[in-house]
Amino acid sequence: MSDSLETPLSKVKRGPNRAQYDKKTALEIIDAALMCHVAQTKNGQAFVTPTCHWREGDYFYWHAHSKARNVKGPIDEPQKVCINISLLDGLVLARSAMHHSVNYRSVTLFGVPELIEDKDEKVRQFKIFLDKVSPGRWEQLRPINDNEVKATGLVRIKIEEASVKFRGEPPRDDPEDYNWPVWAGVVPLERQWGECQQDPKQNTVHDTPHSPNAF
Amino acid sequence: MSDSLETPLSKVKRGPNRAQYDKKTALEIIDAALMCHVAQTKNGQAFVTPTCHWREGDYFYWHAHSKARNVKGPIDEPQKVCINISLLDGLVLARSAMHHSVNYRSVTLFGVPELIEDKDEKVRQFKIFLDKVSPGRWEQLRPINDNEVKATGLVRIKIEEASVKFRGEPPRDDPEDYNWPVWAGVVPLERQWGECQQDPKQNTVHDTPHSPNAF
Repeated sequence: MSDSLETPLSKVKRGPNRAQYDKKTALEIIDAALMCHVAQTKNGQAFVTPTCHWREGDYFYWHAHSKARNVKGPIDEPQKVCINISLLDGLVLARSAMHHSVNYRSVTLFGVPELIEDKDEKVRQFKIFLDKVSPGRWEQLRPINDNEVKATGLVRIKIEEASVKFRGEPPRDDPEDYNWPVWAGVVPLERQWGECQQDPKQNTVHDTPHSPNAF
Repeated sequence: MSDSLETPLSKVKRGPNRAQYDKKTALEIIDAALMCHVAQTKNGQAFVTPTCHWREGDYFYWHAHSKARNVKGPIDEPQKVCINISLLDGLVLARSAMHHSVNYRSVTLFGVPELIEDKDEKVRQFKIFLDKVSPGRWEQLRPINDNEVKATGLVRIKIEEASVKFRGEPPRDDPEDYNWPVWAGVVPLERQWGECQQDPKQNTVHDTPHSPNAF
């Protein structure tokens, strides 16, 4: 069984030397990010919405208000959405403006969203999402109720049509520019979870939560 | 003259209480971010591409290879693109799963891209972009040449149709949940530029570059 995610739609035309279609790499990038951007059309107009996502196996999930465009739109008007997950990792400063770039990890997915309506499955998925955001927290919360489950729309696409683009290296300058007298290299972008800021409306002391392994 | 960016297309339908249309706020968020996501259609299929952007006055700019989809596509097939600029600022951990959220700053722009072909104007814009990425660096670089200018496609849209969404506060729980025995609050996401990593192919010592004020 092939683990390539390449299709005519997902094939990268521009900068193909940085493109790959390996599912394992795609899944790693998807899991390393909290946010994605979902693009869809309505009456021919493209819309893009940022949202948080999670994954189980070969399926990519997101949720929103049950009437929100990015869960209801593609169900009402069945279509392949295009989703990008990107992490900016650093600035690449070269000897010429032309060769400046960024280091990044990026996945672009295509698929027709499928609405998940089964209540138990919805709850199970919301727990998986919360375990990504704050491991171990679900069990500590006021339990979810039926109205909340109903008000939340849940969709997924199968991860089977996608491309990965990746850059993680020093600048690549024109050979004749390497002695140009300017600093060249990479300025890494660092992310970290800061100190937990307790809700001012909370008077009791509780254990602080676990931070996610994704950004 | 109004500074509202609201139009029928940019009006936010879902979560309108977090939406605003103030141009000044939109410009601040645009300037605070290095990356945006450009959504467009081709033959009815939505595509979304991450790219770096910059701004001058009321215009929002991006560039790419002159034949890249996100600069050439909307020129060949004139259409309003939809662009989102998002900065994730923190996790909002509530007492119930339902009220978990994220703090963020987000702008969604619409406009038909305009191709900039004048050579001098292209060079002037590339300098504005580089000044955003690394202030003062342009003058130190090997000067740009005509082939490089020609190979780079530059487009812009006027910032006149947009929405801003913003969240920057503690969780808002159901009144009866405030005493639920679990930590609640915000976990901020911190970003910083790390130590400059000099290109291994560079043997001379040069002053390290200035880091940008955007992430």
